[in-house]
Amino acid sequence: MHRERFYTLAGSCPDRVGIIARVSGFIAEHKGWILESSYHADDPESGASRYFMRIEVKAASLPFDIDEFRNRFLPVATELEMNWKLSDSAKKKRVVILVSKQEHCLYDLLARWQSKELDIEIPCVISNHDALRGFVEWHGIPFHHVPIGNDNKVAAFAEVMRLFDEAHGDTMVLARFMQILTPEVCATYPWRIINIHHSFLPSFVGAKPYHQAYQRGVKLIGATCHYVTADLDQGPIIEQDVIRIDHSDSVEDMVRYGKDIEKAVLARGLRYHLEDRVLTHGNKTVVFR
Amino acid sequence: MHRERFYTLAGSCPDRVGIIARVSGFIAEHKGWILESSYHADDPESGASRYFMRIEVKAASLPFDIDEFRNRFLPVATELEMNWKLSDSAKKKRVVILVSKQEHCLYDLLARWQSKELDIEIPCVISNHDALRGFVEWHGIPFHHVPIGNDNKVAAFAEVMRLFDEAHGDTMVLARFMQILTPEVCATYPWRIINIHHSFLPSFVGAKPYHQAYQRGVKLIGATCHYVTADLDQGPIIEQDVIRIDHSDSVEDMVRYGKDIEKAVLARGLRYHLEDRVLTHGNKTVVFR
Amino acid sequence: MHRERFYTLAGSCPDRVGIIARVSGFIAEHKGWILESSYHADDPESGASRYFMRIEVKAASLPFDIDEFRNRFLPVATELEMNWKLSDSAKKKRVVILVSKQEHCLYDLLARWQSKELDIEIPCVISNHDALRGFVEWHGIPFHHVPIGNDNKVAAFAEVMRLFDEAHGDTMVLARFMQILTPEVCATYPWRIINIHHSFLPSFVGAKPYHQAYQRGVKLIGATCHYVTADLDQGPIIEQDVIRIDHSDSVEDMVRYGKDIEKAVLARGLRYHLEDRVLTHGNKTVVFR
Amino acid sequence: MHRERFYTLAGSCPDRVGIIARVSGFIAEHKGWILESSYHADDPESGASRYFMRIEVKAASLPFDIDEFRNRFLPVATELEMNWKLSDSAKKKRVVILVSKQEHCLYDLLARWQSKELDIEIPCVISNHDALRGFVEWHGIPFHHVPIGNDNKVAAFAEVMRLFDEAHGDTMVLARFMQILTPEVCATYPWRIINIHHSFLPSFVGAKPYHQAYQRGVKLIGATCHYVTADLDQGPIIEQDVIRIDHSDSVEDMVRYGKDIEKAVLARGLRYHLEDRVLTHGNKTVVFR
Repeated sequence: MHRERFYTLAGSCPDRVGIIARVSGFIAEHKGWILESSYHADDPESGASRYFMRIEVKAASLPFDIDEFRNRFLPVATELEMNWKLSDSAKKKRVVILVSKQEHCLYDLLARWQSKELDIEIPCVISNHDALRGFVEWHGIPFHHVPIGNDNKVAAFAEVMRLFDEAHGDTMVLARFMQILTPEVCATYPWRIINIHHSFLPSFVGAKPYHQAYQRGVKLIGATCHYVTADLDQGPIIEQDVIRIDHSDSVEDMVRYGKDIEKAVLARGLRYHLEDRVLTHGNKTVVFR
Repeated sequence: MHRERFYTLAGSCPDRVGIIARVSGFIAEHKGWILESSYHADDPESGASRYFMRIEVKAASLPFDIDEFRNRFLPVATELEMNWKLSDSAKKKRVVILVSKQEHCLYDLLARWQSKELDIEIPCVISNHDALRGFVEWHGIPFHHVPIGNDNKVAAFAEVMRLFDEAHGDTMVLARFMQILTPEVCATYPWRIINIHHSFLPSFVGAKPYHQAYQRGVKLIGATCHYVTADLDQGPIIEQDVIRIDHSDSVEDMVRYGKDIEKAVLARGLRYHLEDRVLTHGNKTVVFR
Repeated sequence: MHRERFYTLAGSCPDRVGIIARVSGFIAEHKGWILESSYHADDPESGASRYFMRIEVKAASLPFDIDEFRNRFLPVATELEMNWKLSDSAKKKRVVILVSKQEHCLYDLLARWQSKELDIEIPCVISNHDALRGFVEWHGIPFHHVPIGNDNKVAAFAEVMRLFDEAHGDTMVLARFMQILTPEVCATYPWRIINIHHSFLPSFVGAKPYHQAYQRGVKLIGATCHYVTADLDQGPIIEQDVIRIDHSDSVEDMVRYGKDIEKAVLARGLRYHLEDRVLTHGNKTVVFR
Repeated sequence: MHRERFYTLAGSCPDRVGIIARVSGFIAEHKGWILESSYHADDPESGASRYFMRIEVKAASLPFDIDEFRNRFLPVATELEMNWKLSDSAKKKRVVILVSKQEHCLYDLLARWQSKELDIEIPCVISNHDALRGFVEWHGIPFHHVPIGNDNKVAAFAEVMRLFDEAHGDTMVLARFMQILTPEVCATYPWRIINIHHSFLPSFVGAKPYHQAYQRGVKLIGATCHYVTADLDQGPIIEQDVIRIDHSDSVEDMVRYGKDIEKAVLARGLRYHLEDRVLTHGNKTVVFR
């Protein structure tokens, strides 16, 4: 972690000879100082590998701003057939949080935001319940209550999308949000919606995973942070972790232990995403920690 | 975890034949229903072992209340030379939290209290800074600012003790409280003050443990929840945990990772303590998880 | 862990008032010294709970031998409707190991046996390949090669059963044995066959779990030690653990990491089983660690 | 992990603009195909940072052999003031193992060697006891018994050094070798001797760490793989891990749990070292996992 302003270049392209040389050569040519860089070849012996990279360049070392960086890098990226993005550490990401009634992930995220550990903007919190309004508003963050029922799902999620867009949200975080998004929401914000699922996927997909885990008698329970796609609980996994339980733990105990893992896994996964450390590839992720 | 009212008997005595029979026989004689029970012999082959136990009895199964339980059990305890206590799950423990400026443990504890995961009373929060007043008061919890400097330490801690006593505190939690308690405070509340230290003790005692860990180049960092005694960072350890770091992590990264471990370890250690799961023995603890 | 000779009583019965008092009272009456004891009520608030227990009694403290212990305890057990067994720490368990070609679990188990960490007899090793004969025989352990193909499965497993019976085996350990047991084997030795499965069950049941895990892009892989039943990979779980991987790990890397988890989980699960720490209940286990 | 032949370039130099460009440019110029590459700036905002790198290049992609690679890269390295080495995946590292009486690490290493998980040569095993001769020789590996007492320490270690040199050893592994090396041995093979210490350093330096851990009442115990220097247990840490214990664990239990951690940590640390993934920097390591 460094605190000087920097630009992050993250992307992927077909593997071939000379990729790093081309990209780092471009940066060196402009006297760019590389603070951190990571590379990964997906399947280096196959001949059909894809190459992933993430590079942080000190902003002050470059003779131009981010727009000019983008313009000048474009031919290089085109030559390499790269999917890429460039971001500026000085421009805070805008994270909209969706919650229901459970507060543990919300408290955790707001504590990280309050202490600037997560250096983001939270333009608003959206909820299908009104329960957490006071807590959110005390922090000076707007709170929108959008009731969601079986008969108004499409309209309700249209409102969620309107609020997200109005807030210029970059990322939508489902912080134990207990409603399944409509396909339209999923399709509108690909790789921009992050969920925390309360099981170690692919075990215990769907509802009541702790009950399922209790029935099966597993000795560890977990949580999974993943991108949301139209397939429920099937999106690319960003981060996971587990905690040990034993026969003396009831479902309620498992729920309690699980909350701690959920908070930690969501916070780590969200941070990776916000720092452009997560690159997707099909249904998998490359995470440059 | 069960939610019916129960009494918890926790204690220890010299090891000998028939302890469990004597205690469980007493309970069975009164038709007491044992919900959970744990036993431990400290050094069972030595001939000088100490015996530890913790028993939860369903309150409604007994024909008398907790005071009568206490009266009737007294002769048994005397016969066994037992140090013991009896507590009532219906009587919430009163936990006074001491904080400085860092908010992560406070947010974490208040989230657990808010959701009733920690079923306690928090009669007040005491701090040597005024920074967290608003957050605490928003929760309806009184906040006391007691400035502490080098020249008023004794007086300031006398005030802390006065506030704790006035609040009828059972347990004092140092939730990243950055002042060293006076010997008088330590002596007044033995086994009632819980600290979270930001290292995996006994490594990195004292100030700036993450800087020490960075210098030494360790590959895991940790946190330790322990009882406070007059010897700094030397009290009996209740709970510990670690998290993996690597060469790319700066001291700031370690501080950030460390917070997550601190929160989790403090919450677990505090819960064990509040549920009378921790029995001390010299400078060590028996923790009946 | 203690090294004095002791008897272990392990069993379960319907929950009611006075179970511990009855059992520990019986032991105390005969001056039995309890070294270690554990109790668990499966569902203590339901009214239909089952009660589990495991008690170690110092052999020398009792005025009779294990047969007399068994005789005298029988009426108590009958009264409590208990399923129970009594074992003698001086009588080594006889563990027959089944392997295929992979050696990591075998090396690990023989190292533990050689150093007396696992204080067992290994009357023989059985394999469907001849590859590990030399290593086993060097340790002075008989090695039986029983080729198993699609056309001789029933006969081959009849031979395995004959060898196991001839060896007076107590427990059969599948130490990465790559053949599915016939239903007859499963039915003949209930709760006496232990397998190590190379995934964190219930994820990735069946063949090539590491390939499945690679496809799904999970961030942790695991292993599961379980009792073998006629349902493939569905038996009661004894022990599990996981290890972190990331995008840079190939299937081969996962196989390699997985071996370390497999060895550790099998060794722990087997130890719990051999020390009568595992009690089954439907498709779940109580493990008194 | 890949199995095609490759060269590994590993080194460090003062940080400045253009390092990656210069090195990867050199490789690209010769059509070198990069399989894997890692970079790290020690302290990127200080102006006095050191830059670390490790690059794997597919051997068949280059028009010359490793000697010519070395010759041609020399001017680049000189220009960058780089400390570097170049190794060939086809040339197996020669690992000499030193043991005493405890076998667990030896069994573990030989199992990994036997299965080619560790693709190394083991030219000999050296021990101050004769106990493990048969096991080692069964594997076709020469075994040298060099008795070491207080009165022959210097001569004995001179013999160890002679045997190591005669075996053309690259790396010396102390696999629970219970003798302290003489300063001369330490000085002769800097960063080539790897030890496994049975505690989570810096806690519990020196003798009987598990006894120390038992006395202190810690809740996790660990092991540390580190380079050996003249300062006992103070060398740069390569890898560490821990395992949870509790009040019921005796010193003997801790020894047993500890063995599992020792094996795993030694195997991981050794692998990192053999794959040139470990770069030292003062008393710390950069480990490119």
